[in-house]
Amino acid sequence: MQYKQWQLASRPVGEPTQDNWKLASVSLPEVNDGELAVKIHYISLDPAMRGWMNEGKSYIEPVQIGEVMRAGTVAEVIESRAEGFSAGDMVYGNFGVQEYAVVSAKGIHKVDPSLAPLPRYLGVLGMPGMTAYFGLLNTGQPKAGETVVVSGAAGAVGSVVGQIAKLKGCRVVGIAGGKDKCDYLVDELGFDGAIDYKNSSVKDGLKTHCPNGVDVYFDNVGGDILDTVLTRINLRARIVICGAISQYNNTEAVKGPSNYLALLVNRARMEGIVVFDNVKQYGQAAKEMAGWIAEGKLKAKEHVESGLESFPDTLMMLFKGENFGKLVLKVEHNDE
Amino acid sequence: MQYKQWQLASRPVGEPTQDNWKLASVSLPEVNDGELAVKIHYISLDPAMRGWMNEGKSYIEPVQIGEVMRAGTVAEVIESRAEGFSAGDMVYGNFGVQEYAVVSAKGIHKVDPSLAPLPRYLGVLGMPGMTAYFGLLNTGQPKAGETVVVSGAAGAVGSVVGQIAKLKGCRVVGIAGGKDKCDYLVDELGFDGAIDYKNSSVKDGLKTHCPNGVDVYFDNVGGDILDTVLTRINLRARIVICGAISQYNNTEAVKGPSNYLALLVNRARMEGIVVFDNVKQYGQAAKEMAGWIAEGKLKAKEHVESGLESFPDTLMMLFKGENFGKLVLKVEHNDE
Repeated sequence: MQYKQWQLASRPVGEPTQDNWKLASVSLPEVNDGELAVKIHYISLDPAMRGWMNEGKSYIEPVQIGEVMRAGTVAEVIESRAEGFSAGDMVYGNFGVQEYAVVSAKGIHKVDPSLAPLPRYLGVLGMPGMTAYFGLLNTGQPKAGETVVVSGAAGAVGSVVGQIAKLKGCRVVGIAGGKDKCDYLVDELGFDGAIDYKNSSVKDGLKTHCPNGVDVYFDNVGGDILDTVLTRINLRARIVICGAISQYNNTEAVKGPSNYLALLVNRARMEGIVVFDNVKQYGQAAKEMAGWIAEGKLKAKEHVESGLESFPDTLMMLFKGENFGKLVLKVEHNDE
Repeated sequence: MQYKQWQLASRPVGEPTQDNWKLASVSLPEVNDGELAVKIHYISLDPAMRGWMNEGKSYIEPVQIGEVMRAGTVAEVIESRAEGFSAGDMVYGNFGVQEYAVVSAKGIHKVDPSLAPLPRYLGVLGMPGMTAYFGLLNTGQPKAGETVVVSGAAGAVGSVVGQIAKLKGCRVVGIAGGKDKCDYLVDELGFDGAIDYKNSSVKDGLKTHCPNGVDVYFDNVGGDILDTVLTRINLRARIVICGAISQYNNTEAVKGPSNYLALLVNRARMEGIVVFDNVKQYGQAAKEMAGWIAEGKLKAKEHVESGLESFPDTLMMLFKGENFGKLVLKVEHNDE
């Protein structure tokens, strides 16, 4: 069987363009012992993808030229030669930006379509949710009564960070782009305040919404916003470095935080996180998060775009801040 | 009695100049109950002084215009109206850049001239030593076998950081300016390697001397050296931000570390320290350090310049990297 996949054709300089991608037609290999053939339904689009397109080794190997683009996905098993999996099972795995795949069953886990819509397993119930949970609780270490600020607050990670911080009794302020997202944070997710970085001063917003300073800052964006928050941190503040989406398409050097000496003045800490480090605790975290969702205390929003062909353009929505909720690409097979 | 003191005359823009200082003649006030009159013999010159000259509040209030410049000092009690102190006692206190002072006895402690030369109480036995001890052990948390890199390595703090790291079983590499300092680090203090940032590439030096990467970086200088070390850090590295002497005289914004996303990739931590936070543990630390000094395991070097009048020029030696060892100004009284 022939199917389509997006391959990395060349490494981008600055913003990825159509030239960096190739939509190839490939044939599905045979399924060997211990393997599954899967039909991919939903593909997770994440800021981290930009880093995987670069040549240098990061926390994970880069995608090689000519390889299918790496991506987390939710897929349906169509043939199983692995114990514990049957045709029809829905599973999560890093199957890539393509319609089908034959993969080792190792490290793949089933998801239950009766418990949540499938795209949710790529958001609050997937890596972004885990990132938020462990990054905030283990590294941010928020205490009740403290002020937690999160950037990219309406995004897949940020929205969960803010809601968990509320559950822990914190004052929570989100930074997001546009009135709709800011209204959503306050009205739907219960944030104490939201700052629209596209239409207002982040500095003024922090003064207004964080009268007692900032104890935990969960940073998804880097750049000027990180620098501005650094001017408002409290003694022994914790800054969680989860990402820096404002800097990923730079053609020049990343903007380092000029105000990093605020760490010294305030005996504060800036620490990077990578979700995979917590893989052994995923089960425990997923259980707690599922409980919060069931009780209505943790809400989720997915932004689903359709059509594998649109992948290059859809990915760019992340960098333009055009997605509202976890960005997911629905494959739309011809037989559906 | 009239005596001389250096007052802050204006706030510097960039490097401090003579215009920022005023050598004033003032009269010694009466000694009230609970107070001491002291004759100051040695004045500690520290990079932090540059920050105290700025208007903004840092970890400590700025020195006000017209006030005597703040400084740690070793002085002789010449009159005591406080219990526990007698004329002739040698004491440590923040008495400022001046010949005499009348001060509250609160927070002042005696030093013993028979145990160590007096300038040493401003170096390894004083704040720089405490900064090194707590910054390295509490925040850097070095483990035996790890690689510790320290900048400003021949300075008052750096030289102690490196020696304590050696005592803890680490591989220790110092970054310092000039061959003499680098030779001293390796030949006298037992560092495993030294990098002369004035005459060689720090990047190449780190490759040579840290074949297994960097686990702890104790930063006194900031700027390009911090950025370069960030490219070599290991998983879960700890970066101790103690100072940024390369940036203190900037007229433009501080250079933020462009490579700070190495924190994310390596799940590493950057944390600021201020020595005063450990005041309750000073006694314990001083005891341990004194033991190391007695056993010859912890060596110290002071760089003593003479004459209160030379203060503005002598201070600048710090920013030019001209001092070799803890920089101390000897007052030289006319009656000596």
